[in-house]
Formats: sequence, C-alpha cells, structure tokens
Amino acid sequence: MALTDAQRAELEQARAARSETRRATVPALEAMLYQVMPVLDHGFVRVVDYMGDDGAVVQSARVSYGRGTKAANEDRGLIRYLMRHRHSTPFEMCEIKYHVKLPIFVARQWIRHRTANVNEYSARYSVMDREFYIPEPAQLAAQSSSNRQGRGDVLEGDEAAEVLRLLRDDASRNYDHYAWMLNEDDAGQVVDEGRSGLARELARMNLTLNTYTQWYWKTDLHNLLHFLSLRADSHAQYEIRVYAEAMLETVKAWVPLSYEAFADYRMGAVMMSSQMLAIVRRMLGGEEVTQVTSGLSKREWRELMEVLGRPA
Amino acid sequence: MALTDAQRAELEQARAARSETRRATVPALEAMLYQVMPVLDHGFVRVVDYMGDDGAVVQSARVSYGRGTKAANEDRGLIRYLMRHRHSTPFEMCEIKYHVKLPIFVARQWIRHRTANVNEYSARYSVMDREFYIPEPAQLAAQSSSNRQGRGDVLEGDEAAEVLRLLRDDASRNYDHYAWMLNEDDAGQVVDEGRSGLARELARMNLTLNTYTQWYWKTDLHNLLHFLSLRADSHAQYEIRVYAEAMLETVKAWVPLSYEAFADYRMGAVMMSSQMLAIVRRMLGGEEVTQVTSGLSKREWRELMEVLGRPA
Amino acid sequence: MALTDAQRAELEQARAARSETRRATVPALEAMLYQVMPVLDHGFVRVVDYMGDDGAVVQSARVSYGRGTKAANEDRGLIRYLMRHRHSTPFEMCEIKYHVKLPIFVARQWIRHRTANVNEYSARYSVMDREFYIPEPAQLAAQSSSNRQGRGDVLEGDEAAEVLRLLRDDASRNYDHYAWMLNEDDAGQVVDEGRSGLARELARMNLTLNTYTQWYWKTDLHNLLHFLSLRADSHAQYEIRVYAEAMLETVKAWVPLSYEAFADYRMGAVMMSSQMLAIVRRMLGGEEVTQVTSGLSKREWRELMEVLGRPA
Amino acid sequence: MALTDAQRAELEQARAARSETRRATVPALEAMLYQVMPVLDHGFVRVVDYMGDDGAVVQSARVSYGRGTKAANEDRGLIRYLMRHRHSTPFEMCEIKYHVKLPIFVARQWIRHRTANVNEYSARYSVMDREFYIPEPAQLAAQSSSNRQGRGDVLEGDEAAEVLRLLRDDASRNYDHYAWMLNEDDAGQVVDEGRSGLARELARMNLTLNTYTQWYWKTDLHNLLHFLSLRADSHAQYEIRVYAEAMLETVKAWVPLSYEAFADYRMGAVMMSSQMLAIVRRMLGGEEVTQVTSGLSKREWRELMEVLGRPA
Repeated sequence: MALTDAQRAELEQARAARSETRRATVPALEAMLYQVMPVLDHGFVRVVDYMGDDGAVVQSARVSYGRGTKAANEDRGLIRYLMRHRHSTPFEMCEIKYHVKLPIFVARQWIRHRTANVNEYSARYSVMDREFYIPEPAQLAAQSSSNRQGRGDVLEGDEAAEVLRLLRDDASRNYDHYAWMLNEDDAGQVVDEGRSGLARELARMNLTLNTYTQWYWKTDLHNLLHFLSLRADSHAQYEIRVYAEAMLETVKAWVPLSYEAFADYRMGAVMMSSQMLAIVRRMLGGEEVTQVTSGLSKREWRELMEVLGRPA
Repeated sequence: MALTDAQRAELEQARAARSETRRATVPALEAMLYQVMPVLDHGFVRVVDYMGDDGAVVQSARVSYGRGTKAANEDRGLIRYLMRHRHSTPFEMCEIKYHVKLPIFVARQWIRHRTANVNEYSARYSVMDREFYIPEPAQLAAQSSSNRQGRGDVLEGDEAAEVLRLLRDDASRNYDHYAWMLNEDDAGQVVDEGRSGLARELARMNLTLNTYTQWYWKTDLHNLLHFLSLRADSHAQYEIRVYAEAMLETVKAWVPLSYEAFADYRMGAVMMSSQMLAIVRRMLGGEEVTQVTSGLSKREWRELMEVLGRPA
Repeated sequence: MALTDAQRAELEQARAARSETRRATVPALEAMLYQVMPVLDHGFVRVVDYMGDDGAVVQSARVSYGRGTKAANEDRGLIRYLMRHRHSTPFEMCEIKYHVKLPIFVARQWIRHRTANVNEYSARYSVMDREFYIPEPAQLAAQSSSNRQGRGDVLEGDEAAEVLRLLRDDASRNYDHYAWMLNEDDAGQVVDEGRSGLARELARMNLTLNTYTQWYWKTDLHNLLHFLSLRADSHAQYEIRVYAEAMLETVKAWVPLSYEAFADYRMGAVMMSSQMLAIVRRMLGGEEVTQVTSGLSKREWRELMEVLGRPA
Repeated sequence: MALTDAQRAELEQARAARSETRRATVPALEAMLYQVMPVLDHGFVRVVDYMGDDGAVVQSARVSYGRGTKAANEDRGLIRYLMRHRHSTPFEMCEIKYHVKLPIFVARQWIRHRTANVNEYSARYSVMDREFYIPEPAQLAAQSSSNRQGRGDVLEGDEAAEVLRLLRDDASRNYDHYAWMLNEDDAGQVVDEGRSGLARELARMNLTLNTYTQWYWKTDLHNLLHFLSLRADSHAQYEIRVYAEAMLETVKAWVPLSYEAFADYRMGAVMMSSQMLAIVRRMLGGEEVTQVTSGLSKREWRELMEVLGRPA
C-alpha cells in the first residue's frame, strides 16, 4: 500500500488534532485512530471514528441515567451473560467507522452484510487508482477436491508462475486501456485533443475484479461481531479473512470485555443439534457410539467427531 | 419531570468527566451532553453520545483520507447538494444516541421507525415508575371533524374537567392496583408476607397507556432527519411532536449545515405531483385555473391552493 | 375471540374464492388460509398470504432457471446443510403474512423484531374494540425467585381471585371512561350533543395494556424462524409464546423440510462455548470434572449439566 | 441473451404448471411469470413469484378481516391518498421476486439498495458464464462536460471503433485466461492432467467488470418503487435504467392503481424547497423574478426554471 505524500500529510494532521470531550473515550483505540493497518498487498483498514465502549453496553442494558457502570467484575459478568444469551440490543449501542481499501471481488462479498452504512469511492465520478491485488505465492491455491467452495494445495512451479504472470499482465493491460479510453491524465487534463474520451461510468467496465476500491464502512458492535464471526472464520475466503482479522484487533482494543465474551461464546463456540447432543449424552453414559449407531449422516458424524476431538 | 437525587448525582458526575480525544468534536453539542431537556409533564430527551459532525458528511462524500473538509462555503454547498438530490448515505455517517422518557402510547408510535437501535426499560424485569402523562388543558382537544386522524377545538368547562379527572383517577388507581399485585415496596421488599405477589410481566398489563417508560434510542443522522420530518410535522400528534422539536434543537447544535439544508429542502419543502406542476405552469402562463378546470379532486385542489398561499 | 357476523361473512367469502396460478402453491397451507387460529382469550393468528415453499429455498440456493428442485432427498439434504451452516439468504426467499389480534403488552414485545412489515389498527383513526386479556387462573404466576425475568408458582385462593377481579374491573372501567370521553356510539354517532368528545388519539391513553389490538405482520422465512426461535422458547413470556406456537404449526404445514431442519438445528440445538466444549472433551476422556475443576462459574456449570442431562 | 436448451425446457415446464389457490392472483402478472424480458445484450429480468395485489394495499390500510376492498373508485382514492402522503407501510404488504442477469458493474450499483433479499450466483462455488456486456454504439458516450457523473455526446469514428475493440478483446482474453487457470472444461472435467488448476474463488479475480452475473432479488412494493424512482430516473446510468424500465412494466401489470399513483406522485413529481415555493408565489403574484432577485444560486435557479418550463 502506497499512500501519496498528500494523503500521508492529511492523515498526520488528523492524528495530531486533539479535543476535549465529555463522551466515553477509549485510550487504546484512540492510539489506533487514523492509523493505517496494511492488509494484502495494497489494501488497508483504519478506524476513523467510534462511539461508546464496554460501559455503553452495560449502561443501556441497565437503562441508567449516568455511566451505568458498577464494579468491574459485575460489568464483566453482565456482558458475558448478555453475549451468552444472545441479548444483542445492548451491543448495538456502540458504533464504529472504518476506512477500508480492498479489491473489488472482496468488496462484493463484504457488501452482502446489509446492516451497515457505506460510502464507496465512485467510479462514475472519479478515476480509479492503478492498484490490483496479486496474491502471494503461498496463497495461490488449487480448487479443493473435498469442498466445492474452498482451497486445496498450493500451486507450484510453472503453473504458479504462469498464473501470476497472467493476473499481473491482464490487470495492467486492462487498466492501460481504461486510462486510454478516459483520455485524461492524473491531473484530469485531456491527453489527446483529437479524441472525446469515454465516460468514466463506461470505461470502468474494462477493469478487472482485483482492482482496488475503497469505502467508508460504519456499523454497530453487534453487527460488526456478526460480520467478524462469519468472516474471521476458517471457512471464509482468505482475502476477506485478513481484513476481519485486522478488525478483530481494533475490537480487542476498543471493547475488551465484549471481545473476550465474543471469543468465548461465538468464535470458539459450536452449535450442537438435538441429535448431536443426544449422542454426546450416550457417550458420556459409557456407550460406544459409531457412525452407524449414531443415526447421523457420514458428513455430520465427521463434523461431530472433529468438534469432540476424536478420530472419525 | 422529577429526577431522584441519586439520578441527579449520576448525571452531574457524568457531565463533569472530561477526556481528550482525536475524534471530531462539536462544542455546541458537548454543552448539551447529559443535559436533561424536559418534554411534556414528566418526560425528557437527553443526548448521551454522538459520533461525527458536518465534516463527517463531506469526508465520506469525498471518501477522503483525512478530515476531508475544504473551504466552509464549499462544504456548505456540497451538503446542500447532497440533501437536495437525496444522496442519503453521507448523512448516515453521523450517529447520535438519546435517553428518552416518554408515555407508552407515544413510544408505540415512535418504535414504528425501524432503522434505529433501542433498549427499553423492561417491565418484565423491573418495576415501573409511578408517572403518567396528563395533558395540559390547552391540549385537551376534540376529535377533528374534517380529519379523522386529528384534533379539533379545545374542550372546555365541565367536559374538560371531567376528562382530566378520569385520566388522573384511572391512571392512579390502576397503578395502585399494579403495586398491590406486585406486593413489593420501593426497595423490592415483600409487603405482605401472606401473599406471593404477581409476576412483574403480568402485573404490568394493568397499567394505562399514558404511563411513562424510557429507553436508549440511537440512530444515524439520515434516519433521524427522516424521523423528524415526519414527527416534527404539523400532522404528527402533539405528544410526539414536542419530542421531535426538542431533538431538532440538538441537531441544530450538532450539525448546523446539515440542519439548515434539512430545514430548506425537507421541512419547508413540498412535493408537487405532475398534475399540480402542470397547473402551476398554466397559472404562470396567465390562465385562470379553477378546481373544475384543474382536473384535480376537491381535496387535492385545496391542498394545492394552500401550498400556493391562495384562496381555495 | 368473538368475530362479528360481518367479519365471519367476509372471511367465508375470502376463503371461498379460488384462482388459478403458476406460482408455487402449498395445499397444506392453502387449507389454513384465512382460517382463524384462536390464541389466548380473545386473540388469534391467521395466515393471509404467502409466497414460496421449500422448493423456493433450493431454487435460489441453486440460482436455477426453473423450479430448481431435484430428487426429494437431495433437496432435503441441501436445506439441512443450509440451516446447519447458517446460510440464511435462501430462507429469505419465502414470505408470509399474518393477521394477528393480540394484547398491547404482547404487541410491544413483538414489535422489537424490526425486520418485518407491519400495519397496525390505528387508535388515532378508529375506536378500539372492548376486549381485554384476562389470564387463565393457571397462568396467574408469582414472580420467580431465581429469575428476575420469569414466573414462579401459580397464585392461589384469595390472592388469585383478587388479582383477577382487579384486572377485570380496571380494564372495564377504563374502557367505559374511554368510551365516555369519545362521546360516540358503535356507529360513530354522537351520544351527548352537549359535549364535544375527546380526540381519539388522546382518549386511547386511558386504556390498559391488556387491551387487544391487531395488525397485519409480514416477514420472510429466515426472520420468521429467528422470531420463533426466541419466542417459542421456554424463556419467552407465556403470552407471546402461545402466538409463536400457533405460528410454528403454520410453518410446519408450509415448508415441512425447512421446519424439520429448524427443529433439529435451532429449536433443539445448544450453543456450547469453547470452555464448555473443553470440559465435554475432558469428560469423554474419562476425567471426573466438578464445578470447581471445570473453571466455570456456578451458573454456567449448572447450565452445562442441564444440557448434558446430568445432576449439577 | 442465449438460454441453453436445458434452461429453456426448465422454464417451459415451470410456465406450464398450474395450481389452484385461495391467494390474491393477478392474471396480467401471471401471464408474465417465468417469461424472460431481455435487457442489454445478454441480460434479462423475469418475475419468479409475487404476493399480493392492489387489494392487499387497501386491505392492510384498513386492517380488514377479508379482502378489504370496496368500490373501485374508493380503493383508487385510498391508494392515491397513501402515496401522496407517504404512508408507505401498506405498500410493504406486497412482495415480488425477480431473477436477473446483469453485468457485475451494474450489480454493484444495484446492491446498494439494502432492503431486499438477494441470492447471487457464486463464483466461489461455480464457473461463470462466458458473457460480457458490450455497449451498442449509440450508448458509447463521452464524459459529460457539465456533470461529473454523467454522459455527453456519443463517440464516433475511429475512437468508437477502438473502444469497442478494446472492450471486446480484453473481456475475451481475460475470460480465456480465467478458464485456463481453472483447468476444467464445461462439464467440470480436468483439461490438463499435469496441472492442479487454480481455486475458483481466486481465478474469478481476472474477470472484467462487464462480465454477467445473475441473482434472485426479492423486495416489497414500497422498496421496489423507491428503487425504481431512483433507477428509472434520467440521472441513473443507462445500463441500470433499462433494467428499471423493464421492471416498471411488471409493476404496471401487477398493481395498476399503485403504479398510476406512483407515476403521478413520484416519477412525475418534483420537490420544491421553501425558497423555490416562495419564488413561485411571488411570480403568481405578478412579480418579475430573476436569478438575482430570487436569492437562489445559479444552479438552483436553473433547476427551478427547468421545472417550471421557462427559459433560465
């Protein structure tokens, strides 16, 4: 990721400013504010603003007049209780806003989470940057043979080299042609007076899906945690997971008690169906249960054994 | 509205605290933070937290790296442009949280606005306060004869007195019986050891709809303005309009440029149908148009004449 | 629940009508259409319209051109897979609309589910019916001593009788006064020419929270199942649970495969935290784990033992 | 747009099926069900399912027990009243589901409308079709000189030819390389046994933004009309406007009364600010108002004169 000098100066200026406020403030997150966290080869995540803290969760759960906090262990207990029993509305009382730079194909997955506010850089109105995502060789995986929606072994040798070359060349060439169609230089001046230049809203269609875009993305803590539980998960595509992982760090700094409860009751938790639970009970009762006697399909039996840390 | 000493102390303490922040801060709204704005006889609105300012609107419209603000008149022009052309997403980048005390029948109208986060005081879990809304005599209006959903003249004399007496007596008596059913005093202690006391979630059903409840209510600026355009309107019921009017004051302090654009392009604006517009054009062309020659229904003709400030 | 003759005739007429359609149609749900399912003493639920079936779930998961269904067991397997792995969007492709009559305090819980479309009978515009919810004696429970948000033993003898008397008398008296304030009879005619009558939007505040209201409520299958998982649960208040249970019957008739998957993976399922799972693994490994050696709080240990069907 | 024989057969079979239903049915829309409406060069829109009709709007506005319809002109008047006064909830009682094939850059605009249910064809799971949008020569417009977000004159001669050649070649070449990276043929069989093939979720990033995708998209009538008011508007990009126009035809067939009210009070309507309205009043009073004496900015004055059909 390469910020221009002007962008870097803007960021520095924003970081340098300080005000006094009566609002709940979180020093650990303040330290991260406007700080760019690099993700992938040219992307980033940075926190632009936030509202509330762990105290805001307990404050609204208690509908209190003041801060609403009590002894630290009581607040922690309440937050864990709320998370465990899926009382989600108190977590909606905190809000956070990110500025994110990400490849378009990642943006298309991300935008499926509807409960958020978004302002994306407009390719109808502005010219896109010349930046594309090219995977690290270690991320160049084959199609998984067992999972139609996943990755298998890493490509090697000539095939890997050829894939990287194609991705690079095609993105570059398409961007060059995009720029030619626009017929304007970086300063927005006409390049060739003999041509009209194609409308931006049309020329952009020549870009590849690994071109970077950027947006402001704002959501509440409850919906953010739901997003992270899906996108920081091992089933998520690597290219979105790395964004989720960077954001997890910001959550940890921002609302440490909520983060801890989330880690215990969401990220590390498993949902057991009524059938699975019945099998666990039989096993705890001393019965030797097999896939056949379990009544589960092979697939579900394998999932259960994995959860219980036993050979399938 | 009567705060207890404990509540007042909590508020004072919250107001006294100050922190340093890198976030956008609005001194005029800071001055209002935690301040109780009385509404109706026992209700209030107060701002508990906020995120963003007018600068956050232009920042996200420009998807900038830093604050994103330019010359003041350019920012104003951009905000007015966004409001006029209904580009709503930049206004979603600001967030505000209120604590509101309000009669239940008002809460039932308010909650219809779904794009908000709410935590209401729970009558399953806690005991409700002994506070009911009793209208001022000047608000004791008859049913409108022209509008099935509105108010007409103010009641007078014996009828007004009797209505007030009934509202007061019924709310009081029902609350007394609610308290009796609960069989617990203010400190949560059993009153009559010989009785079990009815569950709170059941006893509450004896309360009247003018009993006060309270909640934390949080939303973004775009949805707040939509709420205010409907509820600060002259067609809104008086008892919710006074809340909307108090909130308008907080918006004015918070985002003065957005407020001004909202006042011009929403609150003071009218929607003209294609038929109405055609009539205005005919009138501007010198034609004498009447209801009959207009082609409008009597009702729409009356609405149009009102908008144009002419006799129907 | 007492329908008027006019209402009954309207319903019969609606039920009698038949049309031919190309849309997916579910005979078992057609048989229930417009049928009133009584709930509580005067309430009801009835299905007014629906869109889609189990086939619509698989159709959209496969983004197919036609019906998209395959062999019955493949469709069943796909639906179970989607439910198990929380792929919720295919379940959003089915929609259902109910007409519900319910006490206001139940409506206030219900409306907290925001992802639905609602049209409620307007007490600003119309006169409310003279119907209140009075619990069956078996539902007249004391406050739970262990759970601040629940019910304990059933009230008995004089206390129960007195509670019922108060609920009945207060609701009746308040309604009588409401009617007096309105000063209009059932046909909307003025009763006492010497009085103006209070505006409906004001008079309604004298009603009690057990007064019945009604609404049209429409949502998609995913959000309906989420609602039912919370409200058909044993922790939900009895008065809303009975509505959820009636609606479960309609889901069972409408989308039997989705219903079965929901019953297995939601209603009968439990979420196990990372800590709980570690304990189950230790127990399966032969270790004798106690609350003390578990590291869980007493409350969580009790919850775990209950789930595993073992003495705490 | 080229359907395969298998797709065509699927569609025919779905269209041929007929069931009997008690639900509200709209013959004019039934005739369109499963029918493909071609849009752009390879795209389409088709109605897959629907729920409700104009009667459902009045039914829920009246919260009636049966169909709720009255005399046709009363229903029409009510629907126009609801639309004029922005009572949106009754229009939420109707639902419609489309299957849409559209270029990815159009899908990216479309998805910004969050209040809808979407299932998109997955490029992680499946192989994309070899279809790209190439504009008609008449749509090959230059960037507008007056509007940073719009189109100007149509490109001509060599420039036009070169743009078309580049769009075609780049999309084709990138797709060829995508297919090579996947290393599988149409039947999903490995092409070159000596290679692993890149995971689908990675290979797709080489595709251009004019590649076609497809989805099921479902929304309620209120949100559909909001979408159409923005996207069938002259300011919308041509490539999404043609989809909106096709959908307008389906709305006209489905809910003719709501459509008519929408055309009058939304599509053909204008919002006049308080300042604009004051100027119209002055003009109607005989005053000769100019931009200078109006107090409006040049831009707003031009907008007003356009609305009033007068020279600026």
